[in-house]
Amino acid sequence: MLTLSECQEIINQAFREIQLPELPANLYDPVRYVLGHGGKRIRPALVLMACNVFSERIDDAIYPAMALEVFHNFTLVHDDIMDDSLLRRSQPTVHAKWNRNTGILSGDAMVIKSYELLSHMPQAFMPQLFALFCKTAMEVCEGQQYDMDFEKKKEVSAKEYLKMIELKTSVLIAASLKTGAIIGGAEANDADLLYEFGRNLGIAFQIQDDYLDLYADPSKFGKNIGNDIVSNKKTILLVHAMQTAKGEDKKNLIHWLEKKEFDRVEKINVIKAIYNKLGIQGQIIRHIRHYYETGLSFLNQISADASRKEELLKATGFLLTRSE
Amino acid sequence: MLTLSECQEIINQAFREIQLPELPANLYDPVRYVLGHGGKRIRPALVLMACNVFSERIDDAIYPAMALEVFHNFTLVHDDIMDDSLLRRSQPTVHAKWNRNTGILSGDAMVIKSYELLSHMPQAFMPQLFALFCKTAMEVCEGQQYDMDFEKKKEVSAKEYLKMIELKTSVLIAASLKTGAIIGGAEANDADLLYEFGRNLGIAFQIQDDYLDLYADPSKFGKNIGNDIVSNKKTILLVHAMQTAKGEDKKNLIHWLEKKEFDRVEKINVIKAIYNKLGIQGQIIRHIRHYYETGLSFLNQISADASRKEELLKATGFLLTRSE
Repeated sequence: MLTLSECQEIINQAFREIQLPELPANLYDPVRYVLGHGGKRIRPALVLMACNVFSERIDDAIYPAMALEVFHNFTLVHDDIMDDSLLRRSQPTVHAKWNRNTGILSGDAMVIKSYELLSHMPQAFMPQLFALFCKTAMEVCEGQQYDMDFEKKKEVSAKEYLKMIELKTSVLIAASLKTGAIIGGAEANDADLLYEFGRNLGIAFQIQDDYLDLYADPSKFGKNIGNDIVSNKKTILLVHAMQTAKGEDKKNLIHWLEKKEFDRVEKINVIKAIYNKLGIQGQIIRHIRHYYETGLSFLNQISADASRKEELLKATGFLLTRSE
Repeated sequence: MLTLSECQEIINQAFREIQLPELPANLYDPVRYVLGHGGKRIRPALVLMACNVFSERIDDAIYPAMALEVFHNFTLVHDDIMDDSLLRRSQPTVHAKWNRNTGILSGDAMVIKSYELLSHMPQAFMPQLFALFCKTAMEVCEGQQYDMDFEKKKEVSAKEYLKMIELKTSVLIAASLKTGAIIGGAEANDADLLYEFGRNLGIAFQIQDDYLDLYADPSKFGKNIGNDIVSNKKTILLVHAMQTAKGEDKKNLIHWLEKKEFDRVEKINVIKAIYNKLGIQGQIIRHIRHYYETGLSFLNQISADASRKEELLKATGFLLTRSE
């Protein structure tokens, strides 16, 4: 069975070999820049691993895996414009390095490239995989829209928040696994179970992202601790705190959220103290565990030998214990 | 045989029946707004007409026709952001009515929707039509990039200009015709001939657009005459004038292009006088005629009865003599 890192290497190799036209340079240079920066290649690696659960032959899964990765990278390019984020993977974002129009158009080229890569799949799978890809891609847009809508809302419920991260993050992980399963020849029921495994895992990952922003080990965390608190981002931590806090705690929380001028470290410490008093950390850990275990229960139901699922299990365990 | 206006009505009806989710409203309302504003539905009508050259049954062509129309409309939404155009079809553009981020994301949703519509085609045509669609979509992005690059270039050659309009405009018209032909069961050679017909026609249309901006009958033209001159747009008229002008004429032309403050009507009159002196109008009319006749020569070679091509011929003649 292929390991996560073997699958990542297959994908990295495929991206090293990808051919893009030279001209117009202002269109294709940013695409090369984004695809060359790598990232962890989690989604395409999961496509290959899911395929490998059901089949020794994973070649047919490589193009669709790349399609999902290019699509994911497209969303990052456009999201970074919408959020005006200037850094991604410690490098300038496309609109920061070039300009906003270049970010828009090269992002557009990446969506089209993702479909072009997808079109290299075996014809027999086309109707099913194209439909899954389109449905998922639209859901990711919906998730991004909800995320932008939340910025303008005073309060967001946990239910709304979970729906948003499901759309923005989880469905693409779920679709990656299902795509691999279908190409590997899985029965429809098994492909659906793998989708549900991925959907739950994806939610667990995203909650973990919110958690690590505040509770990660600073020596191992790649970013500053507490960025989300400084920017008032509606994370699952804040959503829970707003729901749980009463009286003075709630007043204090709102006071710090509305404060225009503040000391960064003081704001992080005050809000972290409120979270601790409310027991938010424990709530969130239980949340992560719930989605992780729900995901595993779907994986367990899949009609394949435990040995065939082992690498996938290891990979997801690894992703969920990472601290950066 | 279906006429152009019958095909336009079939497409309009299909768009009236299209189902889009209600939520998130900020994502789908702009899509409804753009698709509801209509426009002339030229590309999807050409898909149906091309299909009808080879087959009485055009039902299978409706979804792919809609896909090409939605894709075309997506390019308008993003191009309008890039050019910061505030009006389109006499209505506020998406980013003017909502905001820039809404324009970016709802445009993204439209590309995905276009692929989703395309995915409803008969499975047998999938590999061929997906490849054609992806290739064409990427070329349209390339054309938009060249167009943006030209804004920063001092001089653009006629060859570069023609390549740009071929990519930005013609290939989508050509691909619409070829898509219809393939679904109608045309032989590969006939589908390619129809593509070449469309590619040449598209170039003729775009040159005509540039021409009408200055030489249209003001009483019939929907926009102000001479907008392109006022904004120094590198139209085929200007490209030819820059190549043809010598001595005083060239100096005068450059002087007016570089002038920061000017009277609108005066600038139009001066530059128009230079064009007239250089015989640009005649050159451009010969250009349009050349591409139109080249296009027709491809149409003539198609192995179908003249009677089956008649409506297509009428439609393109109509589009080429329109004055707005």
